[in-house]
Amino acid sequence: MTDDRRSEPLAAKTPFPAELDERLRDQLTFLIEVDHLKAVLRQSPLVAAEQRENDAEHSWHLAMMVVLLAEYSDEPIDTGRTVRLVLVHDLVEIYAGDTPLYAANDRDDQYEREAHAATELFGLLPEDQASRLRTLWDEFEERDTPEARFAKAMDRFQPLLLNWMARGGTWRTPGTTADDVRRRKAVIGDASTYLWEAGQRLIAEGEARGWARPGQSAE
Amino acid sequence: MTDDRRSEPLAAKTPFPAELDERLRDQLTFLIEVDHLKAVLRQSPLVAAEQRENDAEHSWHLAMMVVLLAEYSDEPIDTGRTVRLVLVHDLVEIYAGDTPLYAANDRDDQYEREAHAATELFGLLPEDQASRLRTLWDEFEERDTPEARFAKAMDRFQPLLLNWMARGGTWRTPGTTADDVRRRKAVIGDASTYLWEAGQRLIAEGEARGWARPGQSAE
Repeated sequence: MTDDRRSEPLAAKTPFPAELDERLRDQLTFLIEVDHLKAVLRQSPLVAAEQRENDAEHSWHLAMMVVLLAEYSDEPIDTGRTVRLVLVHDLVEIYAGDTPLYAANDRDDQYEREAHAATELFGLLPEDQASRLRTLWDEFEERDTPEARFAKAMDRFQPLLLNWMARGGTWRTPGTTADDVRRRKAVIGDASTYLWEAGQRLIAEGEARGWARPGQSAE
Repeated sequence: MTDDRRSEPLAAKTPFPAELDERLRDQLTFLIEVDHLKAVLRQSPLVAAEQRENDAEHSWHLAMMVVLLAEYSDEPIDTGRTVRLVLVHDLVEIYAGDTPLYAANDRDDQYEREAHAATELFGLLPEDQASRLRTLWDEFEERDTPEARFAKAMDRFQPLLLNWMARGGTWRTPGTTADDVRRRKAVIGDASTYLWEAGQRLIAEGEARGWARPGQSAE
């Protein structure tokens, strides 16, 4: 995304009437800006259609997973907070773009790019809400709470399910082996022993069926 | 959608290994089935791209709105529960399809079609979770709680914002007038006097700018 576009939010195309209170206008400007998330494409293929998933769809799917799979968390979690974490966790990609899991090179400056994006994007909001969203995003990134660990686990488990349904999907990325997949997905086990066992079962089965190249990566 | 497709969930295309516990398999089967929501197109145009919005994107957007606009609810609401209501409110459209707001004819048997879809779709889940999701969907439909009224308000306010950004959007549906828009959007006022005043401001301004046909509908 160009710097121009960042300095001019989407809402500037059809500005809200000046009669609306400034606080509401700022909130609506942010809510329009995050429409961009629907246009950030991920690598994962949808199950229901021949197209790649976007970040908004992905975020919604994670929220559904939190609601239904929270019972498998090793530690008790506040489901409502975990849902909020997954709803906002990818917002920074509006400016920073999606970084594919199996594209190691792009990952080096990922945090820096995303932190910069967070400052810009959340800065559109009234200060109190900017700070609340930044806190949620930091919590997700730092994974110091059971909620953040479970949110991250869903973020890794969901594409695993999509790849399973696609009989490989991004597991077939050139240079990627089943061991790479295991290594990248192991954070699931930081939140849920049970779901990580299920995840390993799916990866092993995928490997056996030839959907991922077997063992020993170059890393 | 054909009856065939309904009797065979998406997950049947690549069944999960029998080694997984039945409860988890049912949960994953449901979570794969709801991938369909990403392929249910609505009438509303995205702001960020030249395409129509889908139900998954819409549901995520509503959840963000609940998080940021809950302060305008006339009654105190449990934000976490309101978020869950919007996350699941459109799931039935996976089988029942989207019913456009300005297409009066399709709306006659809408509830019946959707209730049937709810039974089928939630039936994929373990019984306790099927019942929890059905309760959420019923609560949204009945609007007897402040949470459900606010969720419904977001469901009507969000496309109003998209239409504003599109300088008309579905307000330009043939036969639709600004009064029709006001009538369909009035439920926003059941949850938030403040947001409904803002909504009326946007509709009046749109009418004045020629984005919706003025007053007096045929209804």
